[in-house]
Amino acid sequence: MQRADNRKFDEMRKVKITNQYLMHAEGSVLIEMGNTKVICTASVEDKTAQHLKGTGRGWVTAEYGMLPRSTGTRKQRDASRGKIDGRTMEIQRLIGRSLRSVTDLDKLGERTIWIDCDVIQADGGTRTASITGAFIAMAEAMKWMKDKGMISSIPVKSFVSAVSVGIVGNEILLDLPYEEDSSAKVDMNVVMTDKGEYIEVQGTGEDSPFQSEELFKMLALAEKGCKELNLLQKEIIGDLE
Amino acid sequence: MQRADNRKFDEMRKVKITNQYLMHAEGSVLIEMGNTKVICTASVEDKTAQHLKGTGRGWVTAEYGMLPRSTGTRKQRDASRGKIDGRTMEIQRLIGRSLRSVTDLDKLGERTIWIDCDVIQADGGTRTASITGAFIAMAEAMKWMKDKGMISSIPVKSFVSAVSVGIVGNEILLDLPYEEDSSAKVDMNVVMTDKGEYIEVQGTGEDSPFQSEELFKMLALAEKGCKELNLLQKEIIGDLE
Amino acid sequence: MQRADNRKFDEMRKVKITNQYLMHAEGSVLIEMGNTKVICTASVEDKTAQHLKGTGRGWVTAEYGMLPRSTGTRKQRDASRGKIDGRTMEIQRLIGRSLRSVTDLDKLGERTIWIDCDVIQADGGTRTASITGAFIAMAEAMKWMKDKGMISSIPVKSFVSAVSVGIVGNEILLDLPYEEDSSAKVDMNVVMTDKGEYIEVQGTGEDSPFQSEELFKMLALAEKGCKELNLLQKEIIGDLE
Amino acid sequence: MQRADNRKFDEMRKVKITNQYLMHAEGSVLIEMGNTKVICTASVEDKTAQHLKGTGRGWVTAEYGMLPRSTGTRKQRDASRGKIDGRTMEIQRLIGRSLRSVTDLDKLGERTIWIDCDVIQADGGTRTASITGAFIAMAEAMKWMKDKGMISSIPVKSFVSAVSVGIVGNEILLDLPYEEDSSAKVDMNVVMTDKGEYIEVQGTGEDSPFQSEELFKMLALAEKGCKELNLLQKEIIGDLE
Amino acid sequence: MQRADNRKFDEMRKVKITNQYLMHAEGSVLIEMGNTKVICTASVEDKTAQHLKGTGRGWVTAEYGMLPRSTGTRKQRDASRGKIDGRTMEIQRLIGRSLRSVTDLDKLGERTIWIDCDVIQADGGTRTASITGAFIAMAEAMKWMKDKGMISSIPVKSFVSAVSVGIVGNEILLDLPYEEDSSAKVDMNVVMTDKGEYIEVQGTGEDSPFQSEELFKMLALAEKGCKELNLLQKEIIGDLE
Amino acid sequence: MQRADNRKFDEMRKVKITNQYLMHAEGSVLIEMGNTKVICTASVEDKTAQHLKGTGRGWVTAEYGMLPRSTGTRKQRDASRGKIDGRTMEIQRLIGRSLRSVTDLDKLGERTIWIDCDVIQADGGTRTASITGAFIAMAEAMKWMKDKGMISSIPVKSFVSAVSVGIVGNEILLDLPYEEDSSAKVDMNVVMTDKGEYIEVQGTGEDSPFQSEELFKMLALAEKGCKELNLLQKEIIGDLE
Repeated sequence: MQRADNRKFDEMRKVKITNQYLMHAEGSVLIEMGNTKVICTASVEDKTAQHLKGTGRGWVTAEYGMLPRSTGTRKQRDASRGKIDGRTMEIQRLIGRSLRSVTDLDKLGERTIWIDCDVIQADGGTRTASITGAFIAMAEAMKWMKDKGMISSIPVKSFVSAVSVGIVGNEILLDLPYEEDSSAKVDMNVVMTDKGEYIEVQGTGEDSPFQSEELFKMLALAEKGCKELNLLQKEIIGDLE
Repeated sequence: MQRADNRKFDEMRKVKITNQYLMHAEGSVLIEMGNTKVICTASVEDKTAQHLKGTGRGWVTAEYGMLPRSTGTRKQRDASRGKIDGRTMEIQRLIGRSLRSVTDLDKLGERTIWIDCDVIQADGGTRTASITGAFIAMAEAMKWMKDKGMISSIPVKSFVSAVSVGIVGNEILLDLPYEEDSSAKVDMNVVMTDKGEYIEVQGTGEDSPFQSEELFKMLALAEKGCKELNLLQKEIIGDLE
Repeated sequence: MQRADNRKFDEMRKVKITNQYLMHAEGSVLIEMGNTKVICTASVEDKTAQHLKGTGRGWVTAEYGMLPRSTGTRKQRDASRGKIDGRTMEIQRLIGRSLRSVTDLDKLGERTIWIDCDVIQADGGTRTASITGAFIAMAEAMKWMKDKGMISSIPVKSFVSAVSVGIVGNEILLDLPYEEDSSAKVDMNVVMTDKGEYIEVQGTGEDSPFQSEELFKMLALAEKGCKELNLLQKEIIGDLE
Repeated sequence: MQRADNRKFDEMRKVKITNQYLMHAEGSVLIEMGNTKVICTASVEDKTAQHLKGTGRGWVTAEYGMLPRSTGTRKQRDASRGKIDGRTMEIQRLIGRSLRSVTDLDKLGERTIWIDCDVIQADGGTRTASITGAFIAMAEAMKWMKDKGMISSIPVKSFVSAVSVGIVGNEILLDLPYEEDSSAKVDMNVVMTDKGEYIEVQGTGEDSPFQSEELFKMLALAEKGCKELNLLQKEIIGDLE
Repeated sequence: MQRADNRKFDEMRKVKITNQYLMHAEGSVLIEMGNTKVICTASVEDKTAQHLKGTGRGWVTAEYGMLPRSTGTRKQRDASRGKIDGRTMEIQRLIGRSLRSVTDLDKLGERTIWIDCDVIQADGGTRTASITGAFIAMAEAMKWMKDKGMISSIPVKSFVSAVSVGIVGNEILLDLPYEEDSSAKVDMNVVMTDKGEYIEVQGTGEDSPFQSEELFKMLALAEKGCKELNLLQKEIIGDLE
Repeated sequence: MQRADNRKFDEMRKVKITNQYLMHAEGSVLIEMGNTKVICTASVEDKTAQHLKGTGRGWVTAEYGMLPRSTGTRKQRDASRGKIDGRTMEIQRLIGRSLRSVTDLDKLGERTIWIDCDVIQADGGTRTASITGAFIAMAEAMKWMKDKGMISSIPVKSFVSAVSVGIVGNEILLDLPYEEDSSAKVDMNVVMTDKGEYIEVQGTGEDSPFQSEELFKMLALAEKGCKELNLLQKEIIGDLE
């Protein structure tokens, strides 16, 4: 099978990351994975989450949105509908969990890092691009905190990146654009650390269940993709200490 | 490690399924997995989902709720808050996807099966119990449809069941009650068919990332649990033809 | 006129009350009146209502809900609609008022008792069943408080029960199931103490106004029903001191 | 006991009704009962309620509101809160039911009469004043319909009026202003036809249960008040034929 | 061109202002400009706006509403729709800004004056009538505060009034009723002080852009109207010192 | 007075317009005015507004949003608050009106052009930048429609651009960045055609009223700014025929 953009089955789309993309946020990144473009910002608030008040621990939380015309057909704004849709909720919970899993919330102190991922243009893989970009924005915001003397070291244990994999026809493919994603029978998102550990594994066979063997192959492809992204992240952020 | 209720690491809690639990619904089940109790109903509506109108295809959709005092601390009603929380959204989307993955929506015709899973008492694993119970309620509703002549055969390709697995301390455990779940460092929900295929695999290492080997062990345990539930389902529903 | 279930005009449906129905709530009851089944729980919160802060007085408040498939046709969840409907509001206000009327809020101290009545299966008379069951759940929660040393005696002045009466055709009937209720021209709900006093009298002749004489006959029937329920309540709870 | 405004126990406040108060509505009334002032309008819509479509029957429905500063302390707008409070829901349902009980919905045809009752100034008894005033506005709107040839006769079977009664201290009083209402131990609203029949009887002993004898005395007082209001209504509207 | 009500192009409609219209509010006015009738109240709250807490400054804020049948066709209540529409928001922000522009918020102290403008009957120019009436209600509430010793002088720098002007056909007209307003190609609202200064100038050529010369002529007409309203306000309130 | 960025009082910030910024929208522009950056898209829907159905006329409507971290302090998402704030409503109504004023809705046919303006980075003047950018996006979408044969000519009568002017200290300034805007005593937004006509004039003296003379000077400055923007627009779009 020939992929739409002539990539090999295990080849990532072209990734471009613009750091310090916006002037106001403590950390901000424009991440482009092929035609998918997401602005990720990290904002530092001097107050922890309600349920952690008085514990000395901080919090990392995320919100996700799509510009109405980031997609082929205009998507109604959540603000106009008066509520957030289920897919959006799912994604923003995933981003928050992924970043918290590598953050030392005690060292962060009673502060909140708000992550905002806003999709400017969507072509598949927006949630995984959001995680990969948001990690950089968070790291930048932590550097800013360290420069201000708010923390003495960057409270992060590992790098975090994410990719999608899936089964289209009979092929297992890495990093699916919308065209492939919409015809995939199995769709999987994998979030990993730079040490090769899993943070999240979410595989869905809505159109058709899948076999163990297929699962294992998808996981191997995902690992390859995540590693490549980790390298890019390290080039931009450098070491976290 | 001794489990709270003296079970072995690979042992399920006691499962009790009461079929035809309510008088009004086309299918209704009370499923009890240990202290977790969920009422699952299936309701047949003579209209398909908006986006399928005119296609001849049907739809299966799910809603999930918890009674305010199903939990240790009273949970505010979504209706009083005026919106559904993110966890609830995530769960009801999962239940719907899981059941659709084995349903032949073309054979269902332009109808909707509404699944309602309401947790009466929660002690861990409510989303997986919901899927296992909802599958039976859906099958019963389809039998009712067949008896009415609305369909000529049960449009279901496989049985569906689900369990949770997780890592508590250093132990990989099957079917976690709340006490274990709340201290687990990795939490995984697995939805499978009776043919041993995966429908959904969702593993989360919020408190700590996990290794491949751990992932594979969890998947093996989950398979054991799902198979046991499939047997129980078959005793109750019989063959689907 | 023959009643649907062969009862006499002044005969209650079979009542079954399961006390301590759930593991988490301080008080919990499953009340069944014929086919109507309601779970009533009482939850103790260590904080009084906003408007009573600093007065030393407590509060009793109630919420009411119906499972979507408790009724013949699936009822959309309030949570999905994003607001509570008028009938539900009316009922939960009635339950709260009825229980407060016999509670010594000063003796309760600055605490709130949350009553939740959730209809599992509806066949007429859900609001009156809710009040009768909720009274027991509240009394159980107060016993729990007394055992914990939070209060020195049960702060309740009288027992409270409730029934519906109505006029169907030309007959005045006690305890109407849905079939009778939906064709009644007058519908009345009466809440009484075990001392024969009225707490609430709500009679509605939406389909047709009614005469004084009919009102008085309905009140007499209601008194008979409420007394029978008081006896059952006393068997379960015993004396309140 | 001396009443605040020197009235006798069975004396109504001064009632003033201004018919055709507003220029746009098909029927509009300003009703003043003492200091309580309510604008009642009736609007004719050429479409019946959703659930009656195709039956040939019409509908009467009501909405109720209070201007923010109709009360002693400014009341937040429902529109700002984003939802209607329970008391408002209860009242608007009561107004709608009361008017429907005397309307021949078949003769009305597939139309809706929208009743709006907006309290300009509140001093007790706003819901009963609303019903009394709304009946006139509805009758006026029906005359307008008859003049337009939409109906051949006024589809109303009886006049409808309403008053509040209550027990303050040991006295049973008619038509309570806010000062009396707020210290009443029993509060009752009664809606009657001009033929002396009951449409609604709602008695509440939130602060203290009440006896049969007290109930009967309250009903007798209410009947006296309703009759006086019917006379006023007839002076304004004349016969309905 | 003959105006609908025979007025000259630069003639205001008949204005009638009833001061102290309601019993509860600290300031209340019924303002009638032709058939447009608005109730304006001012309520004093002993708390400033959230963002001014601790600054010693007060706040003036406004809300605006229309009775459902103030208009030719019944307008759905914002409370029923669950949200405030854009036009209402725009108007209430305008009223608040206009009154704040002449108020010395420091002298007001940490208090809020809530302005409520409720349209009883609409016939064009409701927002400008609201501003003119609300200014009087606010001044009355400030007098009440001064009488109570809460402030030592009336913290207002100038009188505020407002009118609409517009272009209908080729004529520039003052104070447009609905009939003219709905066919106007340019619509302008002007808020001024009694010293001839502008507070707000809002001109809109939705149906057709307009020339400088037209703008200047409209401003001149508006000034004439505002001055006449200032005189009326001064007759009612007297001097503010 | 020295302006923050050394501009002269009548000098615009540097403007940069990137046409065809996004792949999915029929028209899309990134407009940068100094540090203010707004993405404007135009989407064509094959359906007119509800109130124009059957008239043969089309509609142009606009929505406006700010990314949470487009501003110095993170702004909560409207979607999370569950409602759109008043300022946003005001702005999106202004954008829609401005574009409709030059569009021939009859020639557009029964279609809607949805304008979305999303602020990526805010530094004053976001609403005027939105209008200037949205005009180009709309024109591009109309060219797309013409290419598809949906319309035979571009149904636009004039070019539309907008700028802000204001009084800071004693100086009247063109095109205010946030720093100047937040200390301005008068703030004015002007929308004009390329023929020198006004579409909207909105001047606000919240902190202090202003004189006629000041108004006229501001209008003159605004005209200068709008003309410069029109030239840029023409370079990008060319003639509209």
